[in-house]
Amino acid sequence: MSMTREHRSERRGRVLLAARKCFIRHGFHATGMAEISKACRMSVGNIYRYFPNKAAIIQAIADETRTRVTPVFRRLEQHEDPVEGIVGMVLFSVKEFCRGSNARLWIDISAEASRNKLVMKLCEDFYREMGMLLQTLLKRAIQSGKIPGELDLEAASLWLIALLDGAIVRVSLEPGVDISRMLNTLAGSIRRCLCPQAC
Amino acid sequence: MSMTREHRSERRGRVLLAARKCFIRHGFHATGMAEISKACRMSVGNIYRYFPNKAAIIQAIADETRTRVTPVFRRLEQHEDPVEGIVGMVLFSVKEFCRGSNARLWIDISAEASRNKLVMKLCEDFYREMGMLLQTLLKRAIQSGKIPGELDLEAASLWLIALLDGAIVRVSLEPGVDISRMLNTLAGSIRRCLCPQAC
Repeated sequence: MSMTREHRSERRGRVLLAARKCFIRHGFHATGMAEISKACRMSVGNIYRYFPNKAAIIQAIADETRTRVTPVFRRLEQHEDPVEGIVGMVLFSVKEFCRGSNARLWIDISAEASRNKLVMKLCEDFYREMGMLLQTLLKRAIQSGKIPGELDLEAASLWLIALLDGAIVRVSLEPGVDISRMLNTLAGSIRRCLCPQAC
Repeated sequence: MSMTREHRSERRGRVLLAARKCFIRHGFHATGMAEISKACRMSVGNIYRYFPNKAAIIQAIADETRTRVTPVFRRLEQHEDPVEGIVGMVLFSVKEFCRGSNARLWIDISAEASRNKLVMKLCEDFYREMGMLLQTLLKRAIQSGKIPGELDLEAASLWLIALLDGAIVRVSLEPGVDISRMLNTLAGSIRRCLCPQAC
């Protein structure tokens, strides 16, 4: 039983790795099950035992990302300085989603979302969670007097998330850009923008 | 002669309108010349007389956008307050690229760019121009003492452009979002971020 589970998990992992490579090379939409099958050396019928469709593969890639992101987000939500919690959340997300070839994968998934309900749902779930965590931190920052009370929480969290989305687009359109070199400026900008009186 | 030119321009416009609709509905990659032909009621052979390939159609859509954007950018570059020139440039671009169904079109074009050199070149040209204008304004703001001299110009213009890209992703992933309601918060954030001492 345990062997079977290991075997299953190994084969799932093989499909995921191959699919990720195909999506990055040809795009999510243009990649067929036949190509994934060739890349992971498993029959299409066999792949269907693990993933009923392409959206299920994207779901699994998103789940992997969520497994890495969620514990960090939860920790940052408890940060004693809520503004630093916000800065940390944006910087960590930018690093995670722009790592390696991830940016190209995520921009493709975002483009697909507007035409594929399952993919849209995945994106919505992730962004809703990130938005709620950011708003919790923003509220704490207002309560502690760190940032002005008149801030529009919904708009502020939208623009913070837009910085993540924008980083993904930048990295995917400028493959030479060194985003890690840009993170100090981003952190300083968020701090100045949220609590100008502290600068 | 003048009639012929008018006729040509009318037919080009018809192809562009139909192509735009197809791209928004099915995505750039998934749209074939046959679909565009059906949508504009012209033969594929006829379309090829105006556009040799899909990238040429995207080029024409980008040219239309540039014709609208460039004069506004040029005016904002001369703004007597460089910080307001920057705020104006970001806000105007967000409005222009998120208008109607534009956001869905642009995110698709961005996704395609990483796999299509002609489309990538288009994006690079546009963003390079915007980046240069932003850096010119940032330099003027530093020279006039409005913003601190230690600002990393390249990073600052990257994040300002990322706000535009991010807005495009947000609007396309959250079709219900009213981005115009979020622009005041964006303007205030850019001002506080660039010149905290003025707040």
